[in-house]
Amino acid sequence: MIKITFPDNSVREYEQGVSSIDVAKSISGGLAKQIIAATINGEDIDANMPINQDSTIQLHKWGSKEGKHAFWHTSAHIMAEALEILYPGVKLGIGPAIENGFYYDIDLPEGTSISDKDFPKIEKKIIEIARGKHVLQRTEKSKEEALEYFTEKGDEYKTELISELEDGTITFYSQNNFTDLCRGPHLPNTGLIKAVKLLNIAGAFWRGDEKRKQLTRVYGISFPKQKLLTEYLTMLEEAKKRDHRKIGKELELFTFSQKVGQGLPLWLPKGAMLRERLENFLKKVQKAHGYQPVIAPHIGLKDLYVTSGHYEKYGADSFQPINTPAEGEEFLLKPMNCPHHCEIYKHKPRSYKDLPVRYAEFGTVYRYEQSGELHGLTRVRGFTQDDAHIFCTPDQLKDEFKKVIDIVLYIFKTLDFENFTTQISLRDPNNKDKYIGSDENWQKAEAAILEAVEEKGLKTIIEEGEAAFYGPKLDFMVKDALGRSWQLGTIQVDYNLPERFELEYIGSDNKKHRPVMIHRAPFGSMERFIAVLIEHTAGKFPLWLTPEQAVVLTISEKYNKYAEKVAQELNILDIRTLIDDRNEKIGRKIRDNELKKIPYMLIVGENEADTQTISVRKQGQGDLGTMKISEFATYINNEVKKELGN
Amino acid sequence: MIKITFPDNSVREYEQGVSSIDVAKSISGGLAKQIIAATINGEDIDANMPINQDSTIQLHKWGSKEGKHAFWHTSAHIMAEALEILYPGVKLGIGPAIENGFYYDIDLPEGTSISDKDFPKIEKKIIEIARGKHVLQRTEKSKEEALEYFTEKGDEYKTELISELEDGTITFYSQNNFTDLCRGPHLPNTGLIKAVKLLNIAGAFWRGDEKRKQLTRVYGISFPKQKLLTEYLTMLEEAKKRDHRKIGKELELFTFSQKVGQGLPLWLPKGAMLRERLENFLKKVQKAHGYQPVIAPHIGLKDLYVTSGHYEKYGADSFQPINTPAEGEEFLLKPMNCPHHCEIYKHKPRSYKDLPVRYAEFGTVYRYEQSGELHGLTRVRGFTQDDAHIFCTPDQLKDEFKKVIDIVLYIFKTLDFENFTTQISLRDPNNKDKYIGSDENWQKAEAAILEAVEEKGLKTIIEEGEAAFYGPKLDFMVKDALGRSWQLGTIQVDYNLPERFELEYIGSDNKKHRPVMIHRAPFGSMERFIAVLIEHTAGKFPLWLTPEQAVVLTISEKYNKYAEKVAQELNILDIRTLIDDRNEKIGRKIRDNELKKIPYMLIVGENEADTQTISVRKQGQGDLGTMKISEFATYINNEVKKELGN
Repeated sequence: MIKITFPDNSVREYEQGVSSIDVAKSISGGLAKQIIAATINGEDIDANMPINQDSTIQLHKWGSKEGKHAFWHTSAHIMAEALEILYPGVKLGIGPAIENGFYYDIDLPEGTSISDKDFPKIEKKIIEIARGKHVLQRTEKSKEEALEYFTEKGDEYKTELISELEDGTITFYSQNNFTDLCRGPHLPNTGLIKAVKLLNIAGAFWRGDEKRKQLTRVYGISFPKQKLLTEYLTMLEEAKKRDHRKIGKELELFTFSQKVGQGLPLWLPKGAMLRERLENFLKKVQKAHGYQPVIAPHIGLKDLYVTSGHYEKYGADSFQPINTPAEGEEFLLKPMNCPHHCEIYKHKPRSYKDLPVRYAEFGTVYRYEQSGELHGLTRVRGFTQDDAHIFCTPDQLKDEFKKVIDIVLYIFKTLDFENFTTQISLRDPNNKDKYIGSDENWQKAEAAILEAVEEKGLKTIIEEGEAAFYGPKLDFMVKDALGRSWQLGTIQVDYNLPERFELEYIGSDNKKHRPVMIHRAPFGSMERFIAVLIEHTAGKFPLWLTPEQAVVLTISEKYNKYAEKVAQELNILDIRTLIDDRNEKIGRKIRDNELKKIPYMLIVGENEADTQTISVRKQGQGDLGTMKISEFATYINNEVKKELGN
Repeated sequence: MIKITFPDNSVREYEQGVSSIDVAKSISGGLAKQIIAATINGEDIDANMPINQDSTIQLHKWGSKEGKHAFWHTSAHIMAEALEILYPGVKLGIGPAIENGFYYDIDLPEGTSISDKDFPKIEKKIIEIARGKHVLQRTEKSKEEALEYFTEKGDEYKTELISELEDGTITFYSQNNFTDLCRGPHLPNTGLIKAVKLLNIAGAFWRGDEKRKQLTRVYGISFPKQKLLTEYLTMLEEAKKRDHRKIGKELELFTFSQKVGQGLPLWLPKGAMLRERLENFLKKVQKAHGYQPVIAPHIGLKDLYVTSGHYEKYGADSFQPINTPAEGEEFLLKPMNCPHHCEIYKHKPRSYKDLPVRYAEFGTVYRYEQSGELHGLTRVRGFTQDDAHIFCTPDQLKDEFKKVIDIVLYIFKTLDFENFTTQISLRDPNNKDKYIGSDENWQKAEAAILEAVEEKGLKTIIEEGEAAFYGPKLDFMVKDALGRSWQLGTIQVDYNLPERFELEYIGSDNKKHRPVMIHRAPFGSMERFIAVLIEHTAGKFPLWLTPEQAVVLTISEKYNKYAEKVAQELNILDIRTLIDDRNEKIGRKIRDNELKKIPYMLIVGENEADTQTISVRKQGQGDLGTMKISEFATYINNEVKKELGN
């Protein structure tokens, strides 16, 4: 008998050689049917593999990350089988599961091609194979056997891969009439796959090397229920409409220029103003929380980043050093604001009475990304962090953490991100040597984060071993209106930089101490946050943030002059107001502006001009009656205050 | 007889060989005595040199730049003679006139040294020589003669200089017992120099080459009247007190770090907030004038700057290109914001109806300066321009110029720079080929600037030939409280970049046209402007700008709690308020805070705590009586509004 330990620490005994599915069956038959894969002693394996020793177990259903991974990996294998049937002679590269679905890189036979017109017949073939409920057979192969199999099959991509593997580590997976080189894990059988959709075709160089052959990458996704596929496709459709690149262009928020460079956004006036409103919003909160602004340059001597360790980290893969006419002088574009803030901390001696010091900067940093990795505002080469660094005593850590959490929660609430979770990353308790900082300080910091999160009543996942080597951290993940998860704010403890920069304060004991540093960025970056905000709101920003708050609609051109007066007065009162003086019927103007989702329509005709008033309509809600211009301004300002919780 | 044309275009006839002094004498004897040098046909020459052909003439008195230059150049020669007398065997490098005074680089004989203790005896010797009223004799020498003279004298620095000159271009100047290699021009005689002061000693490598010998540079200044020297020294003393580097440190506005790099300011909280207030002030004015904010990255592909021409201009002497892991990809730190703004202009098609487009950005740019050139905030390697680019039709140019002038004048008025002049730089009418842009457009632009300046009633100097090759411009020079001149705002027309970036708009004729571009920066840069502002105000900023507006003084510690309440309420109302709760007598606190120049002192004791009031004292003016906290806030806000002219 062997002992199996469950995630809740309960232990059951089983016969040696029991499979994870058997273990699930021993709990309930219903559960067993849903099990896709398992993690045994930390290793992801097939659900039907035998367990031969005392083990910890996690059973994975569709809902888990590991479950989806196995599900989509098997789907890739089935797609490969379907393609072999439909395109005899096709050669196969690699076919992994990815974040949403799977792909396979294929080398089509001379003279054949594939397009989205072919998707339905491939999907049909995949489902046909899946319905066979074929078991996924895992077999271990010697290197010689493995090479022999694919040499005979005539698949030089696989033989190339195998030639680089160690003998004794090679496994094949087979289903139906198809066998692939693979580590697994896979589904117990193909029958779990009920719905599949091919999504896209792209070119992909073999092994990412542009000097080698370009293969065809076929993307797909699959589900255990047709309904889930339908929901996913609806979500995809909706996501397309909300794509921040599309909306950003429509609303004229930002643009890119090939001449300036990829991944370097140019903020257009409406975007720049929106960004400024967001920054001012955060500045105000931060001021109330005792933050002080600082401003640092966008470059620093290379030595600054050698001291901080960033040169070692970002060096080779990033923007290279900037030489100057002075021999040996080298600067770097800053990838982080912290080294500069450490130097600012050091500009004068500090006493414990001065702490905490909280330096905030909307600091633009530059990090090189491969051009293929760039994506709208979410993956860029230059971005502005809503950065701040708190320098405090170890005893102040918990309080400071709670204050930062307050700021993050206020932001999420104001911007309507109701659905969020947090993750606490702690050090690996079995590998304490890997981390910098004293054991006592780590204990203090981890306890501080755990207590702070508990006191604030946050839903959280605790991940041991996920801390950076320099300190534990707390991350915030929000779900947007489509249920997609985004990592936004982060709060990170750091024992490393204070050490490297030899930061000090004089304690109440009159001795020198090292402060602790907290890095925090509630938005993450302005670019990424605005991208997420656009996709979350589909570009319908809250009133306080939206580029256009009101539009004046004239009943006829006789009232254009009065409309101008209204718009001008409102703009002076900081109500962002446009005029629609097109020569159109008022009904048409109302319909058009309803579609544009400008929050307020202000109708002006004879009555309004005579009485110096406006007739106010709220977008999506209709008539609010007649108001004086100043009344409307007060009304809007109150609405904004409500949104901001003032 | 020859014809001499005066600056007012009047013409007089003289004998051939007449000197400038003779010409002056023909006007008045008093004038002749004041003439130091002259410019004949554009060339600066000695006032006693003969004029042999029809010429234009400008006569230079002490008041002119050219006059001072000759005055100080002669002073340098006399100092050299004095040093030769006092330090026999001294060898001479170069000895030019500079912006304020002159210097001579000398190589002292082995075993001798010079310090400021020696200054009085050298000054005495200089005056002694000057009083001899020695005539400055100019002689032309062949290269051979010149080399022979200095070889015999044993001065290898001069022989090195001569060896690089063309034969036939070499002139010597002699006075009393001293002869120097020199181009001139010089004073007619040494007697004009009535007062001299040596200022400073520094090391200077021969020919600026750190591999060659370090010479001793002796700085001095001289005047035609003792009173002018006294005034200058008083000004220097006052300037030292107002040095923005000193005040910036005392007020904790900014700092530098050797690790970040020279010439890269780090703005401390008080400085960052002050800068933000200045930026917000300008943003508000600009918004009212129809400017739109944009935000661009701090780098761009090298090709962007090849297109703009900046690579050619800044290339070799500046920050070098930034390589990336992608082969051949090169970025540059931006030395200017204009190329990015051109790309933003180009992001969509433009119609004449959209113009003018006015893009504003507080854009941080990087330009390499030699480390020896760096000076506090006035000469830095990274600075933030209050930049904007106006894209307009040629017909809109004058109006746009007037609007920019309005902004500059509003800023000068609000910040108390009452004393300013402007300079219009036009193209050289005799070299029209040197300039880009059509003759018609240049005429239009120059007329637009001239008319705009006249309509605004500005004092101006018109300089022909001083325009950049791409367009005419208008510069603003302000005099600070010490009478020192600073170049601040600039407005520059540009025909070049629209051409290079192929900017277009569709005109009312439905054809494509090039817009004209205006570059403008009323502050110049935040760094330079704040430096000038500090030196102008000696750190006593206007109320709306000053880091600390009020300080609460407690009569005894019993009222500390009430003082905190007062400070907190005022800070919430955006009145920047400190507390002085030191255990000192109130009289002492008032005196100390008077010295700190915080504009308002708020005294709280029993009475005030009981009645929830404060006793208000205005710095330098005394008691303003008792007020409620909110009354004081209103009072301050009104004072600020007055300052800002709202």
